[in-house]
Amino acid sequence: MVNRADVHYFGAGPAPLPTAVLEKASQVLLNYKDKGIGLCEISHRSPEANAILTEAKQALVTLLDIPDDYEILFLQSGGSGEFSAVVYNLVSVWVEKKRAKIAEEVGDDKAEVLKRLRKVVDEELRLDYLVTGSWSLKASQEATRLTGAKHVNIALDARKANDGKFGVVPPEDQWSLTPRTSGGGPAFVYFCDNETVDGVEFPAFPRSLEGDDAPLVCADMSSNFISRKVDVRKYAVIFGGAQKNIGNTGIAIVILRKSLLPPHSTPASPDVLRELNLPVGPIVLDYPTIAKNNSLYNTLPIFDVWVAGQVMAGLVDSYGAKRIGGQEEVSNEKARLIYETLDKYSHVYRVVPDKTARSRMNICFRVHGGDADKEKAFLAGAEKKGLLGLKGHRSVGGIRASNYNAVSIEGAKKLVAFLEEYAQ
Amino acid sequence: MVNRADVHYFGAGPAPLPTAVLEKASQVLLNYKDKGIGLCEISHRSPEANAILTEAKQALVTLLDIPDDYEILFLQSGGSGEFSAVVYNLVSVWVEKKRAKIAEEVGDDKAEVLKRLRKVVDEELRLDYLVTGSWSLKASQEATRLTGAKHVNIALDARKANDGKFGVVPPEDQWSLTPRTSGGGPAFVYFCDNETVDGVEFPAFPRSLEGDDAPLVCADMSSNFISRKVDVRKYAVIFGGAQKNIGNTGIAIVILRKSLLPPHSTPASPDVLRELNLPVGPIVLDYPTIAKNNSLYNTLPIFDVWVAGQVMAGLVDSYGAKRIGGQEEVSNEKARLIYETLDKYSHVYRVVPDKTARSRMNICFRVHGGDADKEKAFLAGAEKKGLLGLKGHRSVGGIRASNYNAVSIEGAKKLVAFLEEYAQ
Repeated sequence: MVNRADVHYFGAGPAPLPTAVLEKASQVLLNYKDKGIGLCEISHRSPEANAILTEAKQALVTLLDIPDDYEILFLQSGGSGEFSAVVYNLVSVWVEKKRAKIAEEVGDDKAEVLKRLRKVVDEELRLDYLVTGSWSLKASQEATRLTGAKHVNIALDARKANDGKFGVVPPEDQWSLTPRTSGGGPAFVYFCDNETVDGVEFPAFPRSLEGDDAPLVCADMSSNFISRKVDVRKYAVIFGGAQKNIGNTGIAIVILRKSLLPPHSTPASPDVLRELNLPVGPIVLDYPTIAKNNSLYNTLPIFDVWVAGQVMAGLVDSYGAKRIGGQEEVSNEKARLIYETLDKYSHVYRVVPDKTARSRMNICFRVHGGDADKEKAFLAGAEKKGLLGLKGHRSVGGIRASNYNAVSIEGAKKLVAFLEEYAQ
Repeated sequence: MVNRADVHYFGAGPAPLPTAVLEKASQVLLNYKDKGIGLCEISHRSPEANAILTEAKQALVTLLDIPDDYEILFLQSGGSGEFSAVVYNLVSVWVEKKRAKIAEEVGDDKAEVLKRLRKVVDEELRLDYLVTGSWSLKASQEATRLTGAKHVNIALDARKANDGKFGVVPPEDQWSLTPRTSGGGPAFVYFCDNETVDGVEFPAFPRSLEGDDAPLVCADMSSNFISRKVDVRKYAVIFGGAQKNIGNTGIAIVILRKSLLPPHSTPASPDVLRELNLPVGPIVLDYPTIAKNNSLYNTLPIFDVWVAGQVMAGLVDSYGAKRIGGQEEVSNEKARLIYETLDKYSHVYRVVPDKTARSRMNICFRVHGGDADKEKAFLAGAEKKGLLGLKGHRSVGGIRASNYNAVSIEGAKKLVAFLEEYAQ
């Protein structure tokens, strides 16, 4: 029997969870608040469920200092579901804005409005994707599938600057964002803040996406959510699957600028979207519907919300006034320890991504130049020490140490000790 | 402190789960198979996760005697997500079949193919909905939202036969299904086998949907899944959210005829669907993609699959060769006990739906003609006896005793005793 205390788990997600939260979870599963029924059994419309939802939101607001003009949504479908959701929702808002403006000029002639709107969509609807790894690539492919290739602008394919492989975030002057002058610029700019498979993280918020006339920015933070300070105001949409830094697989969290929701913005009618050959998304991914119903339009996995709430409340307690800045220090320190050791033994280890874009969350490296047998032996040696989950993603191979919030400094130090020992 | 043993929970979903499964769950959350990590933490691509998925499928196959030419999918997004998924997926297959046939006649002239295809879609694409309660109504509304009203045929609105209220399944000769002769009939016929809110259950599979030239049938079995025998071969798609008879909120199960998947059927290309003003669904609801990836296209909540697998394995053990027939006997017996008592005291209780369509799963009734104060007192009295979750759905009020699989005969008998006591 291996105990939890005997292992340190570096899996890329689902990821480790704080033992204290799991211990509490194992009780509430059977009996929540002495009600005689468990947390997977209570109604999502009960006062208890409402309190869980409110507390989870509050913890997130506190940690990230989320302004009042942002809404927090909990949804099923994971990060991959949000690849689609941002397209459906933001395209819909964009189209309706254009339609309303044209209708103002043209008046009641619906056929004429549609004709002009079609032209505007053809000429101006552009979704900008910064492709820096496997997940932003997938998100851009989903946008293409949903809207058609002509509307998707790959403003950056980072492989082109790195011999066909991901591993860098090229300088912003090499990006080809849709110009803001032509038709108002892109409907949105999308990037993945941290690429789990490739170990690439944006070092900072892109400067070219700042300013008064900045386009809407959508960021996938699935794998570095609540691991560092974020200026939420710079984003239209931040989303993340919960199963890395926050909780269980089963929910995604969306932080959404309220100006994109009614009454500030109106979505286009499905009939209009179809007429324009644009996609209509499922109601369960419709942000206005989910927001209007406080994330309870359909049955929400309250147990998963509770776990996320407990994890976040734990961080609030741990870091006090520092809020997420406290976790950022810890995350940075763990990453520093590991990268420093990898660099020290550069004859044995080779970090895959470029130094300027190294992820603090997913530390990808090769052992002895990627020799398959030696990497196998490395993983076996690590496992003997209770260091688990270190195998790289099947698409790229190698070693990956995922350094999410529930990985302790002690865990990072044990990994460092093993890296030292193996190298020597 | 109220213990689990002190209460019987009749909530409509999330629903009670077997205590033995929850006890085991509370252990595996912390440490699964002595690996030192818990079940919410392990990779969905690990051998352990694969075994869990295989075992859950196998239990379902055994229980329902699912033929080899059916695929089982696990997805996020719940039952409501499947309202959309069946439309996206089956319309896509329908369109591609028509397109291929036209292309055979016309040849390479793509513009001509599209022109003819557009005509066929306009004239022939019909989705038939049998609306017998709140959930099939919602599903039909989603179909209208996705494809436009002209493609949706409300073949039955049961309210019209019952003074504007749900509560009956009118005789089949009153349905107006799209004729099979014109253009081959409907793309599919959709019904909700058991209406959770309204307490209406189809007594049997509709005869008019049988036969060699029967249309594709999609059935929502969210609230009566694995509660009675089902001849799977009669259905193209059976789906259900897990949180009633099977497990936790967080997954839906889809049983899908393989002939609707590649290589037997090809989905239409997104470009063609958009050209035809038809919707393109998100990749996470794309059945071919989910099937091809053994339900692991994106991160699957393995803990929820495990719970469902445990619940189903428990039924396999309990009922042996009788399989789901064993549970059907128990479900019927519990429902019989409760309805019999309600009918016996008909001066106090009034069952809402018609006798011919009474759900065995959601027993909806009024107390003293629906007097608000008296129903409140009834609920308070029940709660004192540990009989919880009896409040009717907020949209219809009244009392609802949900009689899912995890409600024991003993629980049903306690409810009966209270019904007797209250009436006397």
